[in-house]
Amino acid sequence: MNSTEIPNWLKQRAFLTPNRIALKTENEEISFLTLHQNVVKKANQLTFAGIQEDDVVSVLMKNRIEMVELIHALNYIGAVTVLLNIKLSSSELEFQLKDSGSKIVLTEDDLLEKVIHFNNEIIRLKELQELPEKDCAIQGYFSLDQADTIMYTSGTTGNPKGVIHTYGNHWWSAIGSSLNLGLYQDDCWLLSVPMFHISGLSILYKSIIYGIPAVIHESFDPKRANDAIMNQGVTIMSLVSVMLKRMVDELGDQSYPNSFRGMLLGGGPAPKPLLEDCLARHIPVFQTYGMTETASQVVTLAPEYSISKLGSAGKPLFPVEIKIEKDGMLANPNDVGEIVVKGPNVTKGYLNRMDDTKTSIVDGWLYTGDMGYLDEEGFLFVMDRRSDLIISGGENIYPAELEAVLLAHPGILEAGVTGVDDEQWGQVPAAFVRKEEGSIVTDDEIIAFCYKKLAHYKVPKSIHFVDFLPRNASNKLMRRKLIGLLKDENND
Amino acid sequence: MNSTEIPNWLKQRAFLTPNRIALKTENEEISFLTLHQNVVKKANQLTFAGIQEDDVVSVLMKNRIEMVELIHALNYIGAVTVLLNIKLSSSELEFQLKDSGSKIVLTEDDLLEKVIHFNNEIIRLKELQELPEKDCAIQGYFSLDQADTIMYTSGTTGNPKGVIHTYGNHWWSAIGSSLNLGLYQDDCWLLSVPMFHISGLSILYKSIIYGIPAVIHESFDPKRANDAIMNQGVTIMSLVSVMLKRMVDELGDQSYPNSFRGMLLGGGPAPKPLLEDCLARHIPVFQTYGMTETASQVVTLAPEYSISKLGSAGKPLFPVEIKIEKDGMLANPNDVGEIVVKGPNVTKGYLNRMDDTKTSIVDGWLYTGDMGYLDEEGFLFVMDRRSDLIISGGENIYPAELEAVLLAHPGILEAGVTGVDDEQWGQVPAAFVRKEEGSIVTDDEIIAFCYKKLAHYKVPKSIHFVDFLPRNASNKLMRRKLIGLLKDENND
Repeated sequence: MNSTEIPNWLKQRAFLTPNRIALKTENEEISFLTLHQNVVKKANQLTFAGIQEDDVVSVLMKNRIEMVELIHALNYIGAVTVLLNIKLSSSELEFQLKDSGSKIVLTEDDLLEKVIHFNNEIIRLKELQELPEKDCAIQGYFSLDQADTIMYTSGTTGNPKGVIHTYGNHWWSAIGSSLNLGLYQDDCWLLSVPMFHISGLSILYKSIIYGIPAVIHESFDPKRANDAIMNQGVTIMSLVSVMLKRMVDELGDQSYPNSFRGMLLGGGPAPKPLLEDCLARHIPVFQTYGMTETASQVVTLAPEYSISKLGSAGKPLFPVEIKIEKDGMLANPNDVGEIVVKGPNVTKGYLNRMDDTKTSIVDGWLYTGDMGYLDEEGFLFVMDRRSDLIISGGENIYPAELEAVLLAHPGILEAGVTGVDDEQWGQVPAAFVRKEEGSIVTDDEIIAFCYKKLAHYKVPKSIHFVDFLPRNASNKLMRRKLIGLLKDENND
Repeated sequence: MNSTEIPNWLKQRAFLTPNRIALKTENEEISFLTLHQNVVKKANQLTFAGIQEDDVVSVLMKNRIEMVELIHALNYIGAVTVLLNIKLSSSELEFQLKDSGSKIVLTEDDLLEKVIHFNNEIIRLKELQELPEKDCAIQGYFSLDQADTIMYTSGTTGNPKGVIHTYGNHWWSAIGSSLNLGLYQDDCWLLSVPMFHISGLSILYKSIIYGIPAVIHESFDPKRANDAIMNQGVTIMSLVSVMLKRMVDELGDQSYPNSFRGMLLGGGPAPKPLLEDCLARHIPVFQTYGMTETASQVVTLAPEYSISKLGSAGKPLFPVEIKIEKDGMLANPNDVGEIVVKGPNVTKGYLNRMDDTKTSIVDGWLYTGDMGYLDEEGFLFVMDRRSDLIISGGENIYPAELEAVLLAHPGILEAGVTGVDDEQWGQVPAAFVRKEEGSIVTDDEIIAFCYKKLAHYKVPKSIHFVDFLPRNASNKLMRRKLIGLLKDENND
């Protein structure tokens, strides 16, 4: 039995509804037909540049129409696209390029500096636009089992892992979401989260599959986002708590129009006061739960429960199941345990990491590492992302990665990182450091050292020197106890 | 690679949105949770009666809530359901029961007589309701490749063939339709076509997958159908032309509420005057094209083209492709040929008929036997079912085209056209006409009217006035039976 094939999505969409608007920016609107034509041109230029079916190609770019076009063009060719986070440091990018076996990096002038010194072939957008075309054999069908994109995400230990998304993962994500949220003729989705994250990329695919416009913002700005809802027909938006709070503040005493259907709120448990504030102001919020490995949201709170189950992430999308496991057993209702997810939008695995894949995905069930419980009616309440995950302004920060950098400093013997609450970003990383004997390294020096090695959002906002780190019997760092050290420090 | 599995649809729906209404009749409303509970009981009773996974079980029943429950109960058990047309004669039913290898027939008292003298075990609804329960191992997942239902359909020659529908065929039909029509929170579908036809059965599955109510009518009545739209919140309805015409007539000078989203019009080419009438009266009509083998509609006219492409069946659903073949070659735009369809809602084949399957489905493309053309923009215009094609002196004549002209005459209420043998031309068209009440139109006047509208070779050579036209259970004109009226007339 072959995997289900669906006609090339954008090509089919451009055939079915050529004149509908596909993308909007502040300056232009592009129909599906024009987008398709632009994509064919780009696919031909990439073909001229030597990119072929099954090649792995990295894209390092800000949200912009050309980024959308390149992602689709790589689909047309049948290449596999690695989406690179533009905030990463050079050494972080180098790891992902090597690990994914990227043949070529597509980037733009502003970001060139980050990758210029690597061995990979680089094509800048401006160069690409000048290239001649060579006829590309456009993929007529996408097989749902076929690898489409790769995004890196860090685990509890070690290096980031490349999550493989098949066309099927993206397809089922879009379909599952539409069966939950509905699909209205005038729907229009604001895409102001990065397309190198699954939250942004999934909107791009929804736009094509649903036949609705995506309004693209290069970066998030609360005033522009509010304006898109108030004046540009945006009906749905994906965001995280810190963005929502800024939008609500900026909104003042204005209200969104009735045509606005809702805020799809992801990126970790939301503060209840914010949700209550939105409720009081009649701002519809759909709490969601999802991650890169599940190709975006897999659990969403249905409209009819937004009041009675405030604070819950809801129930699974139609094709998805969740369960809670505790000590290898199914947990009882209201008992906290690990959240385990199954469904056709769950990744088939991590690139070149058979062992990690086998550990994380058992019989189709993904062990998320996140903690939560189901109430008696089966509503999910997420307690904590992976015991140690720090979510800062919608970006995931993995303590293990920061600790590895800290330990590379010659003056540091031991290091532990945890998140501390922050009004602006939700959480920010704090580092606990035990110096090498005799070392006179200062916190400023350590922070400067981190800036060289890490994306800026990952750099610890505070360094705390300690005499010991809390470890369990097997000497494993107990990150959750780090916060206690901070309290001790304050009591001194 | 295994086929995609989705959690048991009704069970999942009852878990996700237990309190939403699943089914409405004139007397009752049933929530998804109650429906699930009723279905579990029926599955247990059927298990007690000896029905097991993979058994083939026939259902001979009128539209009613118990029929819905039995179809789901057979899904829960993992049996394969044969849907029998209640208008069939005993000998036609006998053939289908034998051919499908049905173990048991589930029926109701009113229909018992039709099957009582066969060897099959029969369970009447009333008997079933009295049976004890035996715990059934409820199917937790439906594999999209798994056979679910069988419906018989006649080809151009020979015995009816059992079309196998997998769960995937029904799933993709529902999904493809939602991506085209959208899916609104208040959607509600009127089910007044028989559930033993794909048009009715597909609504039952849409209700579960979308989480919306289906309003069930035992049979079609224009007044009750209008009332369901005007007063019971029906937003979408599936029907054929003759039903639509009767509803429009019955509606008088009233209008449907704005919440009404549209008439899904199938069952063959629609008369243009009717479509124009609906347009003038702001009744949204979605022309569609589909058949049992495609698990209902596969081509639908999108809202934005309802005026500019009036009379077209539209473009394919998102996962579907169509092409036109003529003499084994791809036809040019506007050239009539055979309509060929591909997509995940196309049946995998006919039960126990490998040869027919191989002839009809080649590389996933279904050769429909229907004639039509694609215009330059790819819109499908269905000319006619190939079996109905009249070939006269080497010229092709499509009955639907003549019927549309006849229906445009103010004195004509219904019309059907078929070919009769002719020494000179091979075949010539004969028209069967039901007059408007009180009309005194003559055959000469009608023929003169046709001469004004049609190429001369297409004008009917005879007009036969009748009191009714032969229609099947879904009210579709059965042109092949027209010739029988002629014989009756000669015998008078």
